[in-house]
Amino acid sequence: MDPFDQKKKSIVDEIESTLGDIKDASPKGSIDELCIPIIRLINSHQDLVTTSSCSGRVSVFLEGNKVRSNTTESDLTDKMDVKIGGKGDGGNWLFVTHDKNQLTNWWKDYQFNFNRQPSDELPLSTRYILFKFEPLILHIKCRDFKSASLVYQTAMNCGFRESGIGVNNIVAIRISIKLDIPIGYLNENEQHDLFISEEYLRLVTNLSLDRFNENEKKLAQLHKAFDVNIINKVEEKEEKVWESKQERAERMKREGLEKRRLKQLQEEEKLKQLAEQMEIDNKPDQ
Amino acid sequence: MDPFDQKKKSIVDEIESTLGDIKDASPKGSIDELCIPIIRLINSHQDLVTTSSCSGRVSVFLEGNKVRSNTTESDLTDKMDVKIGGKGDGGNWLFVTHDKNQLTNWWKDYQFNFNRQPSDELPLSTRYILFKFEPLILHIKCRDFKSASLVYQTAMNCGFRESGIGVNNIVAIRISIKLDIPIGYLNENEQHDLFISEEYLRLVTNLSLDRFNENEKKLAQLHKAFDVNIINKVEEKEEKVWESKQERAERMKREGLEKRRLKQLQEEEKLKQLAEQMEIDNKPDQ
Repeated sequence: MDPFDQKKKSIVDEIESTLGDIKDASPKGSIDELCIPIIRLINSHQDLVTTSSCSGRVSVFLEGNKVRSNTTESDLTDKMDVKIGGKGDGGNWLFVTHDKNQLTNWWKDYQFNFNRQPSDELPLSTRYILFKFEPLILHIKCRDFKSASLVYQTAMNCGFRESGIGVNNIVAIRISIKLDIPIGYLNENEQHDLFISEEYLRLVTNLSLDRFNENEKKLAQLHKAFDVNIINKVEEKEEKVWESKQERAERMKREGLEKRRLKQLQEEEKLKQLAEQMEIDNKPDQ
Repeated sequence: MDPFDQKKKSIVDEIESTLGDIKDASPKGSIDELCIPIIRLINSHQDLVTTSSCSGRVSVFLEGNKVRSNTTESDLTDKMDVKIGGKGDGGNWLFVTHDKNQLTNWWKDYQFNFNRQPSDELPLSTRYILFKFEPLILHIKCRDFKSASLVYQTAMNCGFRESGIGVNNIVAIRISIKLDIPIGYLNENEQHDLFISEEYLRLVTNLSLDRFNENEKKLAQLHKAFDVNIINKVEEKEEKVWESKQERAERMKREGLEKRRLKQLQEEEKLKQLAEQMEIDNKPDQ
C-alpha cells in the first residue's frame, strides 16, 4: 500500500470508529455532527482524506496570564511583552457550543456582572473575556498537488476566500464570517465583569445564530460543489445518450454484474498472490 | 524575458512609481508605509514579487442592503436570503485608518447615538455597523512551487497560521489577531444608533491600538525571517574561511571586477544576438 493510502486508511478507520461511539453515547470531543456528511463524501474519493474539522462554534474565552513571570507591569510600557488572546498560562473557555440550539440564554448559568464600565484605562496585563463566533474549518489531505489545487479552487469558488494549500498537499478551507468581541475582563477579585449589558449579549448571541445559519448554507454549497466537481464529476468528453427507463434499468443491471465480476476477479487475484507469497516465504533458503 | 520576470518587472515598476508619488503628495490609495520595507526586501529576491498588501487597519463598516429587490421582509423567515456583512448594495465604510496615530477620539466627528438598546429583536434586514480590526495581509507571487513552499513555511513559523498557497504559486500571508464587533445599526431615520456606550467604543479603540502594536511586532518578525531564511540566506554547505581585513578587501575587489567583466560579456552577447536578429529580419524571403 502506498503511503497516502496507508495514512488515509488509518484516518478513515479512526473516524468511523469514533462515529460508532456517537450513536452509543458521548458526542463530546468527537466529530461535529454537521460535518459528518461532507467528511464521508470527501473520504469516498481515493485521492482525498479529511484530517480535521470544526463545523463552526460560539465560544467565550478568558485570556491567560499575559505578563511573563520575570516582567512587572511597569516593564510593559513598550507593549512588547504582552501576548494578545493568549491561550497558555491559565487561559480557558468559559463556554463553547457547536450547536445553535444551545445558544438561548446560555449566560443564565454564569455569574456575570453586567454594565461594569471601568473608569480608568485597564492595565496591559488585563485578562479579557472574548466572545467569538468561528465558522467552518476543514483540512483535507490530498494525494498530490493536482488534487489539492482542485480542492482549493472548488472551495474558493464557493466563497471560502481564506482557503489555502499548505505543506504535504493539505488544503485548509476557511471563510471569514466571524465575530470577535471583547465583552469583559477578570476583575481584581477574579470575577467576570462585563463591559456590556445583558441586552447586548443577547443581541450578539442572536447575531451568532444568524452566522450559524449562514455557515450551514455555505457548508451545503461546499458539499454540493465537492459532489458535482470532484467526487461524482461527469467527464465532459463523455457523450450523453438519451435512454428510456427500461434501457436505464438494463444498463444498471449490466454495470452491476460487471462490477461484481470485476470484484470477484480481483479477489481471486489477491488469493493467488497470497498463495504465491506463502510459497515464497516457505521456500528454504537456497 | 520569461513570463515571471516580465510580470515581476511590471509590478515592481508600478510600485516604485507609486512610492515616488508618496514623497510628493497623496498617500491615499497607495501602499501602506509600514509595508514598504518588507515589500522592497521581498522584491529584491529574483523568485518573488509582492502582488498586494495591507499593513493592518481599523474600519467601521455599515452593511449594505440585505434584502433582494424581489424579496420582502416576511420572505426572510428561513434566513436564506440574507447576506451577512454584505459589501454590495450600498454598504460603505464610515471610518478607515491604517495609522494607529489616527485612533484617538476618532468618533468625535461622527453623529453616533450611543446607548440605544433596541427593545425588540431587530429584523433580519437590519444593516449593522461593524467595528473591525484587520491585521497585516500580504500576497506574494513566487516563481515556482518550491519558492512558494519556502515563503509559506517561513510565514507559518512566524505565527501567520492562516497563510496558504493559492493558484499560480501566490502565497497569502495571514494572521488571526482580529476584532469583529457589531456596534450598532442604521435606524429607521437613517441615523447611526449604537448599542454600546462611548466608554466601550473608547475601550475597543484602545484594544485596536494594542493589536496594531502586536501586528507591527509580527511584521518585524516576518521581515527578519524573510531576510535570514530567504533573501540573504547563507548556504549551509558554503565553507566559512576566516579572512583578514586586507584579504576581504582584495576578495571584494576581485569579485567586483569579475562581476563587471561578466556583465560586459553579457552585454556584448546581447548586442551580437541583436545584430544577428536584425540580419535575419532584413533578409528577403527566399
